[in-house]
Amino acid sequence: MTAAAEFGAAQEVDRKAGLEPLTAYTQDDLARVNRLIVEYMQSPVALIPQLAGHIVAAGGKRLRPMLTLASARLCGYKGERHIGLAACVEFIHTATLLHDDVVDDSKLRRGLDTANALFGNKASVLVGDFLFSRSFQLMVADGSLAVLRVLSNASATIAEGEVLQLMTSNNTATTEAEYLEVVSGKTAALFAAACEVGALVADRSEDECKALSEFGMSLGIAFQLIDDLLDYTADETVLGKAIGDDFREGKITLPIVLAFERGDDVERAFWRRCLEDMEQDDGDLRRAVELMKAHRALEDTRARAEEHGRRALERLEGFPDGPAKSALSDTLVFNLGRDA
Amino acid sequence: MTAAAEFGAAQEVDRKAGLEPLTAYTQDDLARVNRLIVEYMQSPVALIPQLAGHIVAAGGKRLRPMLTLASARLCGYKGERHIGLAACVEFIHTATLLHDDVVDDSKLRRGLDTANALFGNKASVLVGDFLFSRSFQLMVADGSLAVLRVLSNASATIAEGEVLQLMTSNNTATTEAEYLEVVSGKTAALFAAACEVGALVADRSEDECKALSEFGMSLGIAFQLIDDLLDYTADETVLGKAIGDDFREGKITLPIVLAFERGDDVERAFWRRCLEDMEQDDGDLRRAVELMKAHRALEDTRARAEEHGRRALERLEGFPDGPAKSALSDTLVFNLGRDA
Repeated sequence: MTAAAEFGAAQEVDRKAGLEPLTAYTQDDLARVNRLIVEYMQSPVALIPQLAGHIVAAGGKRLRPMLTLASARLCGYKGERHIGLAACVEFIHTATLLHDDVVDDSKLRRGLDTANALFGNKASVLVGDFLFSRSFQLMVADGSLAVLRVLSNASATIAEGEVLQLMTSNNTATTEAEYLEVVSGKTAALFAAACEVGALVADRSEDECKALSEFGMSLGIAFQLIDDLLDYTADETVLGKAIGDDFREGKITLPIVLAFERGDDVERAFWRRCLEDMEQDDGDLRRAVELMKAHRALEDTRARAEEHGRRALERLEGFPDGPAKSALSDTLVFNLGRDA
Repeated sequence: MTAAAEFGAAQEVDRKAGLEPLTAYTQDDLARVNRLIVEYMQSPVALIPQLAGHIVAAGGKRLRPMLTLASARLCGYKGERHIGLAACVEFIHTATLLHDDVVDDSKLRRGLDTANALFGNKASVLVGDFLFSRSFQLMVADGSLAVLRVLSNASATIAEGEVLQLMTSNNTATTEAEYLEVVSGKTAALFAAACEVGALVADRSEDECKALSEFGMSLGIAFQLIDDLLDYTADETVLGKAIGDDFREGKITLPIVLAFERGDDVERAFWRRCLEDMEQDDGDLRRAVELMKAHRALEDTRARAEEHGRRALERLEGFPDGPAKSALSDTLVFNLGRDA
């Protein structure tokens, strides 16, 4: 394992810690979800389980399936359907990751070589398609058109968000509203669907389904904003952490949008050189962080995340107190506070 | 337009001619399918309709949706559902084409620049995902779990066939059985599903659904084998035609599988140099065709196609004679006989 890989693995452990309340609460169900994932990624075509196994075994946070599991329990669900549907949500996510890494030409994910780095872009595109198809086979096996509607809509929205992200990439003129649109699509739509599915299997009212969908949407936005923030601030903590990946890739995230909007002409020229022309020198990342601080771009990104977090918590209010609600809200609160 | 593009366009017109009976029979329904396709490829994310519009407007043969339309009519269906489901079948096909062109790094399709050549691989991957999601939204709107089952199974099988093709690429040791597995997956599975959906909307018996599925499967295999054959023989006709694309790309198709199996050591070394090492000189394509002829690989590929064509026709026997059956069988017979 390379040094970068070890580093990434350490970072990953760290992020998982933030999900501790949810992981502890869902662990028995999650073990069943993991077994189902392994079962459904099988195929007589050997390369498929090899490649899928690589990304699945790399052990993501399983945050999205955990949201389905905990949401179902929050709604008092006693059955088995949430297991298959949680696996289905994770397959959609995994398919998206495989395609993302091809699109971003990424070499490392969660501290390990990406599937495209190991198996090539071609195989990653096609196995992504396979896993996406598998997710629909799982939904069909579940048999609920309402669930199929929510997840097929989410899939279309995710793809729209990804295309929109492609269009904003390296574009410093991206507005906060446009950026929020990207995040809502590429990240939060699946969080929303994952939570709504929990309410659907429990056969809850339209209002309750909507409340959990909105909970997931706000949660997803808050999570993404904190991720974006940490990409610039994580070095300030006791934990060493590779920062600046987004900057080096010319990814336009909220800290940049805010700093650019609030900057003068000289500063904007700096942002354009670094993120549009992609000409970056030593010290540019440091200057970027200084400008973000000077314009309160980092504080305001956290404030926005907290605002979405508050909205998320509000949407849980109508649900009964108990371990499911605690697991969901503790995870949210913990993650809003995390600084690494 | 380049000379190659004009040439490709001529070739395309030619292939469309072979579908004349089906096109004539389904034209009114097909016009409605085309309108629905345009409607469903819309998105507020401008790049999506731009890119999707390019590949959709390039005007493929629409063979697969025509199969759904004609199969539904063959089963006496009088309703409207076949329109949406035919569009859905075409979306699955289009998504596959977008990803195929990325995987094959193709620059031209149907005589025009490919979407990935014009818009980049990233956009093609993501818009493919979008169209695939749209196809499931169309199925959900239709509301039949039976249809969703058939098409999600077909999607998984297509992806498996594509991955298998990737694994056989440049591999002269590919057997006829393996090749048939690739063709059944990447091509014929969607033909089979397109036909079966026609029987499903008409609420026909399981046996009739199975008969139409098998009709589509055999038809799809026959079509692909004729395509593979024409890639080596089309120059023998009065129409000039660019041949040897598969050879130049190192694609292992049935004529090669048969010629390789029947060749001696010297010939096998030739095939390995051309298709595995990808070292090709002037005259190699000519030698390849000569070896195929010497070993009756071309005749036997046509014979296999005809055998699958016969099986396809047999599966239609239980259905009533009439314009739908004629359109399907004439198209099959015409295409089996085509030599350009």
